[in-house]
Amino acid sequence: MIKITLPDGSIKEFESGTTVLDVAKSISEGLARNVISASFNGTTVETKTSLSQDGSLILYTWKDDQGKKAFWHSSAHVLAQAIQELYPGAKLTIGPAIDNGFYYDVDFGEDKISDNDFKKIEDKMIEISRGKHEFSMREVSKDDALAFYKKEDNPFKVELIENLTDGEITFCDHDSFSDLCRGGHIPNTGIIKAVKVMSVAGAYWRGDENNPQLTRVYGISFPKQKELKEYLELLEEAKKRDHRKLGKELQLFTFSQKVGQGLPLWLPRGAALRERLEDFLKKAQKKAGYEMVVTPHIGQKELYETSGHYAKYGEDSFQPIKTPHEGEEFLLKPMNCPHHCEIYNASPWSYKDLPKRFAEFGTVYRYEQSGELHGLTRVRGFTQDDAHIFCTPDQLDEEFKKVIDLVLYVFGSLGFENFTAQVSLRDPENKEKYIGSDENWEKAEKAILNATQEKELNYVVETGEAAFYGPKLDFMVKDALGRSWQLGTIQVDYNLPERFELTYKGSDNELHRPVMIHRAPFGSMERFIAILLEHTGGNFPLWLMPEQAIILSLSEKYEKYTQKVLNLLENNEIRARIDDRSETMGKKIREAEMDKLPFMLIVGEQEEKDGTVSVRKHGGEDLGAMSVEKFAEIIKGEIASTLKTFEV
Amino acid sequence: MIKITLPDGSIKEFESGTTVLDVAKSISEGLARNVISASFNGTTVETKTSLSQDGSLILYTWKDDQGKKAFWHSSAHVLAQAIQELYPGAKLTIGPAIDNGFYYDVDFGEDKISDNDFKKIEDKMIEISRGKHEFSMREVSKDDALAFYKKEDNPFKVELIENLTDGEITFCDHDSFSDLCRGGHIPNTGIIKAVKVMSVAGAYWRGDENNPQLTRVYGISFPKQKELKEYLELLEEAKKRDHRKLGKELQLFTFSQKVGQGLPLWLPRGAALRERLEDFLKKAQKKAGYEMVVTPHIGQKELYETSGHYAKYGEDSFQPIKTPHEGEEFLLKPMNCPHHCEIYNASPWSYKDLPKRFAEFGTVYRYEQSGELHGLTRVRGFTQDDAHIFCTPDQLDEEFKKVIDLVLYVFGSLGFENFTAQVSLRDPENKEKYIGSDENWEKAEKAILNATQEKELNYVVETGEAAFYGPKLDFMVKDALGRSWQLGTIQVDYNLPERFELTYKGSDNELHRPVMIHRAPFGSMERFIAILLEHTGGNFPLWLMPEQAIILSLSEKYEKYTQKVLNLLENNEIRARIDDRSETMGKKIREAEMDKLPFMLIVGEQEEKDGTVSVRKHGGEDLGAMSVEKFAEIIKGEIASTLKTFEV
Repeated sequence: MIKITLPDGSIKEFESGTTVLDVAKSISEGLARNVISASFNGTTVETKTSLSQDGSLILYTWKDDQGKKAFWHSSAHVLAQAIQELYPGAKLTIGPAIDNGFYYDVDFGEDKISDNDFKKIEDKMIEISRGKHEFSMREVSKDDALAFYKKEDNPFKVELIENLTDGEITFCDHDSFSDLCRGGHIPNTGIIKAVKVMSVAGAYWRGDENNPQLTRVYGISFPKQKELKEYLELLEEAKKRDHRKLGKELQLFTFSQKVGQGLPLWLPRGAALRERLEDFLKKAQKKAGYEMVVTPHIGQKELYETSGHYAKYGEDSFQPIKTPHEGEEFLLKPMNCPHHCEIYNASPWSYKDLPKRFAEFGTVYRYEQSGELHGLTRVRGFTQDDAHIFCTPDQLDEEFKKVIDLVLYVFGSLGFENFTAQVSLRDPENKEKYIGSDENWEKAEKAILNATQEKELNYVVETGEAAFYGPKLDFMVKDALGRSWQLGTIQVDYNLPERFELTYKGSDNELHRPVMIHRAPFGSMERFIAILLEHTGGNFPLWLMPEQAIILSLSEKYEKYTQKVLNLLENNEIRARIDDRSETMGKKIREAEMDKLPFMLIVGEQEEKDGTVSVRKHGGEDLGAMSVEKFAEIIKGEIASTLKTFEV
Repeated sequence: MIKITLPDGSIKEFESGTTVLDVAKSISEGLARNVISASFNGTTVETKTSLSQDGSLILYTWKDDQGKKAFWHSSAHVLAQAIQELYPGAKLTIGPAIDNGFYYDVDFGEDKISDNDFKKIEDKMIEISRGKHEFSMREVSKDDALAFYKKEDNPFKVELIENLTDGEITFCDHDSFSDLCRGGHIPNTGIIKAVKVMSVAGAYWRGDENNPQLTRVYGISFPKQKELKEYLELLEEAKKRDHRKLGKELQLFTFSQKVGQGLPLWLPRGAALRERLEDFLKKAQKKAGYEMVVTPHIGQKELYETSGHYAKYGEDSFQPIKTPHEGEEFLLKPMNCPHHCEIYNASPWSYKDLPKRFAEFGTVYRYEQSGELHGLTRVRGFTQDDAHIFCTPDQLDEEFKKVIDLVLYVFGSLGFENFTAQVSLRDPENKEKYIGSDENWEKAEKAILNATQEKELNYVVETGEAAFYGPKLDFMVKDALGRSWQLGTIQVDYNLPERFELTYKGSDNELHRPVMIHRAPFGSMERFIAILLEHTGGNFPLWLMPEQAIILSLSEKYEKYTQKVLNLLENNEIRARIDDRSETMGKKIREAEMDKLPFMLIVGEQEEKDGTVSVRKHGGEDLGAMSVEKFAEIIKGEIASTLKTFEV
């Protein structure tokens, strides 16, 4: 008999040789129907794997990331078989599961493959899947494995096998197809009900540009046709919401070849959006006791030698700026913390003055290779909503909670409701990797865990993931399309206070080191706005919209009245403009829709007579005619429902 | 008979040989009493100079800069005589008048001179002055001149005379003293009623560090003792108002050796001040139709090659920033215009869209040698309140007037009431020096002159002072101490639109070049705040003060009430804080005075009982007890008296 521990902590006894599927059956028939993969003592196993020792078993269904991985890994085998049947000369290389599906790198030889061939491959895959072929692992000798692929004239697989120096060599068989494989499959091909070949791209064998170029065939598969349909719709929506596309359409930002790649230029509407976001955070930060500072965008090399950044990142950064005389050297600032440390050091502090919270919308510059740049999410210059809190170790707990409050306020006001927190602690087995005393680390880690629990965050703990200078808390946010983004970070730092010799006078009249907290709820204005664009599709929360309403005039005759309406709106602090072009109302409405304007106020003879506006919401809902005052109340009500006042 | 033209254009006839003084007498006895110098046909002459040809004569009194120059030049002779009488071994070199007084560079040989000797020198100067000795010019031969100074064993004067290659050599005599001199004196020493030796400093002979070091003795003199007293008080006041001193006392900004010289770090109170100034201008600019943009602090070298800045300033600037890969080169931006041109170029424009007004508080970096840096007035990184207006040539007139309105609004709101405008036009004799068509230059110059006159500015025209790219208008502002500062500039630019190939589609459906206006009412935040500090001595206009009131609590007992008062103030948008330290009220008031807090609200038992605050103004005025609401009205009234709403 063996003892199997399940995720809920319960332990069940089974006869040795029991399969994973048997264990699932012992729990429930439903689970047995759905289980497609598992891990045993941390190693991926299959449902037919026999268990012959004690251990921990986790069962995975399609809903689990591990389940998807097995599903897509298995689908790659089916793709490979389909390709081999359709293109007998094609040579297979490697084909892993990825975050969204799987791919297979193939040498198609003389054959060219294009969009037109996708349907054929998909049909073949579905045909194979319908055969409900089981996936079976089989151990082979190195000689047999080599012989198999030499016979197939496949130099790639031969190379792979020759490079295998230890462990057993295994093949996976299903139907008539065999592939070199480490395992981790679903029970049979029949579960794969929907497949889609997504795209093809060039890829060098083993990623080395000196090697032959292969064709990478990307695919994705699902247990239900409906899921594939939804996924494709989501992709379509994501494409529509691509922040680069929306940024252009909404005239938020642009790039210039002459200014340089990765250096966004913010157009008026984008700059207004940024400013509104900054003002929103400034207001909350002021309430939370932050003080704004302003520091330059360069610093002497020495500053970054003191901070340690130069030694660590200097070579891969924008290179030093020399002066024409006097031999000075400056660096573009890659972060604001060294400057804020120097501001802290400009005055003596007592424990009674702490915490000091210095905030700055600080623009920093970091070199990225041009191939890595992407819209606003990967740039070379960006503005951090940065702040550094200098406090005593005893204040950490309280400060951490306050920062969490602020981050939650930011997320709530911007419509990010789905997030988890990741607590990164040090590896207790390798304490020498970290700077700072045991006592302070314990204090800080306890403070973070404490704050996380007290604020009832949905969180995971990652041991060993702390930075060398301190533990941290990151927020992972899911957007409207279900994609995860890291937004917002809170990090404890014992390192810079040492390096900059920061001190405060304690109640014992002795000098002590303060602790620093780095924090940025948005992360950076650029990245945040990109994510917000994709999350909202450009339909920002009403309080943030650069323009909240547009007055569409039926004719120039109503010029005086439209101006009066505009003035009334401005008196009510509603951002609006007039469209009095001599275009048709249909065209004006279409363009206002394109511009994502939340409210359209149509003004004509009747409205002027009654002193009203006819209100149309973005998307088409007709709210009818009403007074401007009534409309202002609607807007204020809608804003108040998302944008609360930050309370400390 | 000769014809003498006077500054009012009138022409008078005199006998040849008439002296300047005679001419003055013929105008008025009062003028004759006060005239101390003159210029005839553009050359400086003395009151006893005989006129023997037709020409233009300008008479100067002490009130004129030219009069002061003659006064101080003559005083330098008196200083030289005094030194020679007190230190017989001292060798005189040169001694000119300067902006504020005069100096004489002297080789004192073995003698050392210090503060303690100043009184002795001043007394001797006054003794000489009282002799009412006339200054008389005398022509001497080179040989006689050399012989004179060789006898005196003065190698410096000998060197000067030996280097004189053309023109006559003249000496000036007064009392028993003679000096090599080109002339330009007051009638006699008796007019010099008050003298002060200000300081001594080292100076190399002829400014060359390989030459012997001399002692430079600085002095100043006045026609009245009272004027000297006022001047010394002004100096004392200027020292107190030095923005570097006030900036430190008021904790506005600091510098860090590690960050680098000339790179200010704005502390919380300074950053708040900056932000308030920026918000003030932003609000007015919004009303005036400006749109904010945001651009990076670097640009590719190519950008500045296009703009022409690299060719012109590249070598003397911060050197290019290289990238670790891909061989790119960036420059710290020395100005914002190239970036704004690229923003303009990001969209096509029609004449109907113009003018476009792009504004940015853009931080720029310009290399200055460390010896040239000075507090906030000469820095290496500063933020311009920049904007670029892109308009059609026909819109220049209107736009110029609008910018003047904005500049006047800024000056008025900040208490700068005394200013003149300088219009810089091109040199019509050297049209080839300038870029742009004749027609456009005429249009632009006419627009500036037109606007200047229409706005009734007190202005001077400087022909030939235009930039090569266009005419401009600068504002010279006098501060509370009577010192002049250049603040605010409006410049027309025909060059960058060419270089960046900017276009708009005209009503003729053809592409045309827009004109650009560069403008910055503050100039830079750093310099403006420095001048504002010195102008106001830190007592900023009430609307701008980082803190407008402080609540001084007589004891901790009133904590609840002081908090209530603070909340009431905040509800009335008054910036205030509480001082509830257990210090004496006297100390609290003194510190609040030091911090330039405009209002102190004293709170004790009586005030709590009555629901009032006892209000004390900065400087000591007691406004008595009143309700917070009443106090809020006083503050609002005072703000409204300086800070008007900007009306377009």
